[in-house]
Amino acid sequence: MTGRFYQTAYLNFIILYLLALHLTFPIFAHMEKFELNILGCGSALPTMRHNATSQVLNIREKLFMIDCGEGTQVQLRRSRLKFSRLNHIFISHLHGDHCFGLIGMISTFGMIERTADLHIYAHADLQKLMRPQLDFFCKGLPFDVVFHDINPVERTVVYDDRSVSVETIPLKHRLPTCGFLFREKPVPNHIIRDMIDFYKVPLFMINRIKNGEDFVCDDGTVIPNSKLTIPSDPPRSYAYCSDTLYNPEISEQIKGVDLLFHEATFLETEKARAKVTMHSTARQAAEIAKMSDVKKLMIGHFSARYDDDLCLLAEAKEIFPDTILANENLSINV
Amino acid sequence: MTGRFYQTAYLNFIILYLLALHLTFPIFAHMEKFELNILGCGSALPTMRHNATSQVLNIREKLFMIDCGEGTQVQLRRSRLKFSRLNHIFISHLHGDHCFGLIGMISTFGMIERTADLHIYAHADLQKLMRPQLDFFCKGLPFDVVFHDINPVERTVVYDDRSVSVETIPLKHRLPTCGFLFREKPVPNHIIRDMIDFYKVPLFMINRIKNGEDFVCDDGTVIPNSKLTIPSDPPRSYAYCSDTLYNPEISEQIKGVDLLFHEATFLETEKARAKVTMHSTARQAAEIAKMSDVKKLMIGHFSARYDDDLCLLAEAKEIFPDTILANENLSINV
Repeated sequence: MTGRFYQTAYLNFIILYLLALHLTFPIFAHMEKFELNILGCGSALPTMRHNATSQVLNIREKLFMIDCGEGTQVQLRRSRLKFSRLNHIFISHLHGDHCFGLIGMISTFGMIERTADLHIYAHADLQKLMRPQLDFFCKGLPFDVVFHDINPVERTVVYDDRSVSVETIPLKHRLPTCGFLFREKPVPNHIIRDMIDFYKVPLFMINRIKNGEDFVCDDGTVIPNSKLTIPSDPPRSYAYCSDTLYNPEISEQIKGVDLLFHEATFLETEKARAKVTMHSTARQAAEIAKMSDVKKLMIGHFSARYDDDLCLLAEAKEIFPDTILANENLSINV
Repeated sequence: MTGRFYQTAYLNFIILYLLALHLTFPIFAHMEKFELNILGCGSALPTMRHNATSQVLNIREKLFMIDCGEGTQVQLRRSRLKFSRLNHIFISHLHGDHCFGLIGMISTFGMIERTADLHIYAHADLQKLMRPQLDFFCKGLPFDVVFHDINPVERTVVYDDRSVSVETIPLKHRLPTCGFLFREKPVPNHIIRDMIDFYKVPLFMINRIKNGEDFVCDDGTVIPNSKLTIPSDPPRSYAYCSDTLYNPEISEQIKGVDLLFHEATFLETEKARAKVTMHSTARQAAEIAKMSDVKKLMIGHFSARYDDDLCLLAEAKEIFPDTILANENLSINV
């Protein structure tokens, strides 16, 4: 019995210690997820190497899907991301390789008894096209599919909550198309537990101190906020740009983002074809990254003609060295 | 130069010898393909093991697709079957896991410059649902999508050419559903070359003899057809039955087919669920096979709840030993 008591006490001590650590050291702030998961990064023709376009951005365990090509639901299953945490889907434009997976995924959500509303942000035409499909194939769905019509040619905030905002990035493609800019909201500073204890800061002051207030002791001494807190990490940002003609106009909007995904359908040798089909080359993607001073570039939306994407990577790296290739099942912390 | 001459002569000799063999021995008749390719054999919820339903029957290099769930186009690519040889698609019923792959596949066919019409045999509702999608996503398609409305509750021949006929098999499911019965047309007998030479049968008589005529020599002697030919293989048949409640009524129609595909969504332990959802158990599939005296049974349309389909196989084999499991990328000669 006594042994059991000590065991429990020991466990409690460890939990409290970890909690204290979590509150004190900023290293634990990195636990707040801002993670990009690639479900598909091919272009119009799906191949055995690349699925049609879809990505999931995991921001503090809320999942935001961007585009939803055919086969996305299986890729989502493969990613082991929790279906139930996905409530918002952003569709860049109405080409099949960016939205044909929606109906199947929604149908599956219905079968697995999802109840939370699913919000889809897309050009108004998607709603018109999908309503008859949903009415026929997904009769009696236990949740609502809520369409939010967006105007892709206008730069607007289409989503906003306490941790993130999403803004459209107008692009130039064969039909109305936009990218999406995800900006994390600032996180309060981290308090230094030892200092809080030392100055006997009462509990009700903690949040105010986290948000930047100084502390005034009983004897009137002012303890500056900088002595009580460690600044939180700067908010992170992710810009998704697919599909688009080389378009330097977006540079100002995506300036300095932590990660830029930019389509790189072709090599420079296919520059003429890129222009006709209103796509970009790997070099052009890198040039956008460079002029926008982004921290990292990921290229994707690879044409089926390339058996190996390394040639696209090499071309981009010549202009912007911190470039990586998108790939199915790749998960990257922004 | 002389060496080259002998080489060519030798090659010609081999080619002629093989040609003669081909005309003489019935073993070569087996070269006429009647091959079933499984592209997907899962049920409503796609998993990482099983794709949504689709099959391709290759009859003498003409491809007939049956059902077309999400992801079928990638599976078709994986199968290495030639896209251009697929002109006819049969849809058993309008549940998403049997038709969501159509729009993506048709869209891809458009991009790879297909020009031959594509014929789709399905309930009339499919056309209504797909037309707006085709008009929007597949504008300027270089071929026509021709819908043939079928009435699944009626047993009718929906396709017929000189090598095969396709008949609907009315099934019992939650909405109008049918299976498809593919029957090969008889092939002419194989002539015995040596006998043809021996009796000096003129060229113009060959086809008539293949089709069963006797030969009358110049001196009036009648050479019976059986001396000049070897009977061709009996025509083959394939019955596809998915999705359906246990339905012994189909037995008479599919009697003696060479291969029966029957859905086996559940085990007997889930018999009540099978009834409610209007599906079959593995045992029920086997019972249909047994009472229909088919040569071989393939089960598929497995529920996502089973991590291993061997339990379904074992259950079916108890009743009908010549049972095999469907599986993605399985190709079987009927």
